[in-house]
Amino acid sequence: IKGEGICRLRFALVSIYQNLLMSKHSGKETPAIMDLDYWSDGRLASIHKMLNPRSIAVVGATERMQYGGRFLRAAMQSAERGVRVYPVNPRYGELMGMKCYASVSDLPEAPDVVGVIVPHHRVIPVLRESGERGAGSAIVISAGFSERGVSERRELQAELGEVARETGVRISGPNCLGLANVKDDIWACSSSRLEGVRLKSGGVGLVCQSGASAFGPFLSRAAERGIGYSYIVSTGNEADLDAPDFARYLLDDDDTRAIAMFIEGFRDARKFLEVAKLAAERGKPIAAVKIGRSALGTRAARSHTAALTGADEIYDAAFAQYGVVRVHDWDRLLETAQLLADFPAPKERGAALVSHSGGVCSLTADNLGAAGIDLPPLSDAAREGIDDILEGFGWAANPADVTGHAARETLVPIMEHMIAEPRVGAMVVASSGSEAQARRVIDVRDRAGKPVLFLQTGAEMGDSAGLDALKDAGVPVFGSPENLAAALRDFHAYHDWRERRAAGGFAKPAPMTDAQRAALDALRSAEGAALSEYDAKRLIAAWGIPSANGGAARSANEAARLAKRLGFPVAVKANSPDILHKTDAGAVALGVQDERAVRDAFRAVIAAAREYDPSARVDGALVEEMVAGGVETIVGIVYDAQLGPVILYGMGGVFAEVMRDVALRVCPVDESEAREMIAAVRGSRLLAGFRGAPPADADALAKTIAAASQMALRLEGAIDELEINPLAVFPEGRGVKALDCLAVIDA
Amino acid sequence: IKGEGICRLRFALVSIYQNLLMSKHSGKETPAIMDLDYWSDGRLASIHKMLNPRSIAVVGATERMQYGGRFLRAAMQSAERGVRVYPVNPRYGELMGMKCYASVSDLPEAPDVVGVIVPHHRVIPVLRESGERGAGSAIVISAGFSERGVSERRELQAELGEVARETGVRISGPNCLGLANVKDDIWACSSSRLEGVRLKSGGVGLVCQSGASAFGPFLSRAAERGIGYSYIVSTGNEADLDAPDFARYLLDDDDTRAIAMFIEGFRDARKFLEVAKLAAERGKPIAAVKIGRSALGTRAARSHTAALTGADEIYDAAFAQYGVVRVHDWDRLLETAQLLADFPAPKERGAALVSHSGGVCSLTADNLGAAGIDLPPLSDAAREGIDDILEGFGWAANPADVTGHAARETLVPIMEHMIAEPRVGAMVVASSGSEAQARRVIDVRDRAGKPVLFLQTGAEMGDSAGLDALKDAGVPVFGSPENLAAALRDFHAYHDWRERRAAGGFAKPAPMTDAQRAALDALRSAEGAALSEYDAKRLIAAWGIPSANGGAARSANEAARLAKRLGFPVAVKANSPDILHKTDAGAVALGVQDERAVRDAFRAVIAAAREYDPSARVDGALVEEMVAGGVETIVGIVYDAQLGPVILYGMGGVFAEVMRDVALRVCPVDESEAREMIAAVRGSRLLAGFRGAPPADADALAKTIAAASQMALRLEGAIDELEINPLAVFPEGRGVKALDCLAVIDA
Repeated sequence: IKGEGICRLRFALVSIYQNLLMSKHSGKETPAIMDLDYWSDGRLASIHKMLNPRSIAVVGATERMQYGGRFLRAAMQSAERGVRVYPVNPRYGELMGMKCYASVSDLPEAPDVVGVIVPHHRVIPVLRESGERGAGSAIVISAGFSERGVSERRELQAELGEVARETGVRISGPNCLGLANVKDDIWACSSSRLEGVRLKSGGVGLVCQSGASAFGPFLSRAAERGIGYSYIVSTGNEADLDAPDFARYLLDDDDTRAIAMFIEGFRDARKFLEVAKLAAERGKPIAAVKIGRSALGTRAARSHTAALTGADEIYDAAFAQYGVVRVHDWDRLLETAQLLADFPAPKERGAALVSHSGGVCSLTADNLGAAGIDLPPLSDAAREGIDDILEGFGWAANPADVTGHAARETLVPIMEHMIAEPRVGAMVVASSGSEAQARRVIDVRDRAGKPVLFLQTGAEMGDSAGLDALKDAGVPVFGSPENLAAALRDFHAYHDWRERRAAGGFAKPAPMTDAQRAALDALRSAEGAALSEYDAKRLIAAWGIPSANGGAARSANEAARLAKRLGFPVAVKANSPDILHKTDAGAVALGVQDERAVRDAFRAVIAAAREYDPSARVDGALVEEMVAGGVETIVGIVYDAQLGPVILYGMGGVFAEVMRDVALRVCPVDESEAREMIAAVRGSRLLAGFRGAPPADADALAKTIAAASQMALRLEGAIDELEINPLAVFPEGRGVKALDCLAVIDA
Repeated sequence: IKGEGICRLRFALVSIYQNLLMSKHSGKETPAIMDLDYWSDGRLASIHKMLNPRSIAVVGATERMQYGGRFLRAAMQSAERGVRVYPVNPRYGELMGMKCYASVSDLPEAPDVVGVIVPHHRVIPVLRESGERGAGSAIVISAGFSERGVSERRELQAELGEVARETGVRISGPNCLGLANVKDDIWACSSSRLEGVRLKSGGVGLVCQSGASAFGPFLSRAAERGIGYSYIVSTGNEADLDAPDFARYLLDDDDTRAIAMFIEGFRDARKFLEVAKLAAERGKPIAAVKIGRSALGTRAARSHTAALTGADEIYDAAFAQYGVVRVHDWDRLLETAQLLADFPAPKERGAALVSHSGGVCSLTADNLGAAGIDLPPLSDAAREGIDDILEGFGWAANPADVTGHAARETLVPIMEHMIAEPRVGAMVVASSGSEAQARRVIDVRDRAGKPVLFLQTGAEMGDSAGLDALKDAGVPVFGSPENLAAALRDFHAYHDWRERRAAGGFAKPAPMTDAQRAALDALRSAEGAALSEYDAKRLIAAWGIPSANGGAARSANEAARLAKRLGFPVAVKANSPDILHKTDAGAVALGVQDERAVRDAFRAVIAAAREYDPSARVDGALVEEMVAGGVETIVGIVYDAQLGPVILYGMGGVFAEVMRDVALRVCPVDESEAREMIAAVRGSRLLAGFRGAPPADADALAKTIAAASQMALRLEGAIDELEINPLAVFPEGRGVKALDCLAVIDA
């Protein structure tokens, strides 16, 4: 079990850091690097062929418009772009006017991608045959695998994944709907909803586990809103390639400027975080819907066990940490991805708002304000310029209620006054979108070179020529002030985050010192469910986290001597790995004033511990200085089954427990991120010097959090949980001290 | 100033309670009742005529399609329903084929409503003339009043309101767009957007301060979504009748089953709360957008002074208190109002969800779960019945992924299995809405007699026959899982609230006792900025709120005698109305152990107080028992400029200040509502007996909050703020004690 733990530790490091290649710089880590070339195993090349095929075979093509027939018809549309399409079905000589082949082996060339639409038991033979024929990749539409919820089919799916890796014919699916290369208009999918859909090519790459969502709402809403895709990918059951793999591919695709993901559950969440970090480095934003906010969603997605309920807040934390914008709805995902794909990083955070209606101005401004977007007041020149046009009617302000001028040529100079303001980075026009109005809005946008967003106040998706013109011109059109404000907030939050994090990059795993190795060895040989307080404090000491001065005493006399050396008063606590809550056990004596009292206390706390739990091992007592002053905080480590080591910070006392006022991050974090954690906790105001107290040593606290997060990486698999509670933070320059520490050993 | 304070107090009681007629039962209150018949002054009769006119005059009618011409054309459409329409304009003999009158005086009858579309300086003369002709009401479209932001025009508007009241020709506007009686298809408005709009008649009554919103997004979105209105009212600048007046009218209208309001700012928020209470009593829900969540919105709405920023959380509290559903967007308002209008109070809170797609199921279930809606697991019978249909594909569960069966006749028995489940109160179908599917969904709905909601997964507002059929059949159609979940959450929250509050009704102002009157008299004769702690504690004692035992001492000897009587140790605190923070001043001695120490402490605290503020009046010292144990809480009173007396509850220490973990309510509250306040504060878990402490006396705390809220009503105008901090709550059965109390006198 211990060995397995270490394997998990090593795998964590590889999985999280493989692409940053950090371990190269710390020679001793090299043995742990098992999979440095994770994405160089051919999977990206397979995905490239899958998404940009020159030839498509459709195994299981039929004339009926079900999955096989639909896949063939969709593929055929690519023929005019030079893609060679081969129906495969022994029951037909010809299909839709094309020669039909009896098997993959009979094909005149090795196809770039094989669409597989055959009964579940036939899928693996088809894949093997495709491998022999030298196919580049496969899309397995066939269902009947793990989604059936029976072990036989789960095993069949596992075997399918192995065959894909073994043959090198890497697959999307099974139980997916296929994919689309929208930029080149190549469709390799079985969707029934393609007819009549007019989809723009654009900068959003969509990776969606649910095929019916990818080719359902995500297709039709994007068409309706004029949002352009580079690619649409559905990944289904992910027997082989998964959503992070496709996102990883899209990082390399220059036409994809933002990635939108719909995730029911990650097969490997750490892999996704790795992609997210790489995306952050390259400045390619990711927006994602991730199921799991509620137990219902988790149950429906069938991706977690009940034991993982509650982990969702760790996903929230991890997404925020690595710049992934999390949303909860189709439209919000598309609207946000569109802004991230189409607009450059904003130079100014302020917005200007204009409408024909005061009420629309108020509501939109209220939503923008609640989302943290500023509408900077106009300069005198702009105000006077607009007032000259309005002649006293409406409001020459930001927001501007321009009444009937919204429908006149005068909208142009009004907008120009506002959009030229130095603090204005983007402009929002809220009106009904007549054709003439649209033309003027586009005109101003083109000349000003600043982003313009349109809030449609008439019928939401009215099919008017004006709205179409706006969409064609790349002006995002929103139907709701609340959604517009949320998208703009998320857009700014992404760029704010990137600006903040871009300089330092992400925290890297630090090489271990000899002392840390020794502590880890000692930990591995520990027995029982937990470390004693003394051992736990020695463990954290190896990562530079100080504790109250003191030591372990095996006898009353030793305790008295120790106390004398420390100076009075002292604290005396039973030292036992089996009693986690010493205070409840009465096994703690505080403020002990002299040697004789120390001896009495030694005997008393040990007796109390034995009475509390007669089977507990009691290893003498700790004698420590009494620490006065300092703000009490908590620093903890937990291990999430999906996301691995997680560091927790909160205020001590009842704050963390009663208020749930804590910050979480995936490990490791550096000091600047630790400072963000501190700032994110409301109770941290106590550190600033509340009610006349001196400001606390926030630097030392941040250092401690960062050190604990490094420690968490190394302790994965060895401990289940570690909690420094309280960690006293003293006035500036005077550091921190762990007053108690609990480490639960991984069972 | 004191007298004015009392007037404000009396007005508060009248304004809040006039319609509950509570004061009738406390004879002594009668003098305060100035306006018992507030809504019996003819305004409801005027509104009735305005909304249901048999004759409409249009003053300022023109042939051009601007405000006057549009009003005339809209009114003309009502002619076929027997409404007599009279254009008035001396410049025309005939308009749109009708005889045009030179003036209102020339009309052949007294019109029920006069549309006024003339320059601002002509409005009052037209109104006076209308009064002389016996007109029933007027709609003033004309702008150029207070919205111009100059005092002259504000005064003109005030005069307009006075003329309306004086002549009895009550008005909507000025600067409004008019109104519509949708149920009888009578339009008295100047909207430019009526053409081509197909609006259903239905149960939602809309009251909207912004005309361009009422006849813009609220018109077109409702038409698009098939949401039916009874009436649409725009109130503009509200020189006379305001939004709460119209809402009050709609309470009496049986065709209006829910009221939707768009409020930029209340002229009289307490009046609105009065309408809300009445609405709650009658079971007629109100949903509202209220601007003011952000300073930007407030600035744009121009309804508040900067001093009122931050009051928004009191609106949130007040809305929640009186069952008003607050939303922040057009679509959310309409969607929520539709559910509230069309669906009865739910018998069961659970929902059933069915879709053709697992991904759609997951996302919708996740959003429902996050909104607190349950999807109860299916009974064995239902599960087996569905599984027989699905034959192992999809999920026979709740949510149900029924794959291709969503498009087949088998959707009917699947839905029937689910909707018949005893814990299912409503059903959600998430699919693309083909005509055949729509027919089946309506069919099941009709036979099951339970509400069905449709989540459209294709193009959001696709103009398909299926979606139209659903809307026509009264099945609410949503475009977004997040909005659907939010609307269902708000729907349940309303009915949960009503169930909870319906039994007891709202708290009523209690008659004052002689002791309270005496305390109020004493308060009125107090001088300075605040009461001394001693006086503040005597004040709250009159409302039954106990303090730590003790008394005021004028000399060191008196202090010692008092201490001896109380028993040692005691607390000694300088008693001064001018020193609000005695601890900061060093004017508090705690744990004083004997008589001599009390004498020393008496001198020390007075010296400290004098040194801290040489000009402070120091009125000896308070000597009090030392109180041990008890959970420290805060109970406070503040006065909101719009909403009046507000009671605040939170935890003591740094909780309220650092965590902002407080509950607010408009006064008064009864004990059950006080218990809800306690439950709403996270830190209240400390009361339940945290970490082995005995449970605290929550009953006594609730009684104290309720008593303080009664006191707050009576102290309005006399104090600005009162804070009992800390209020110690002792173990069950042992009550509460105010350990300190601060009362700031109204300046």
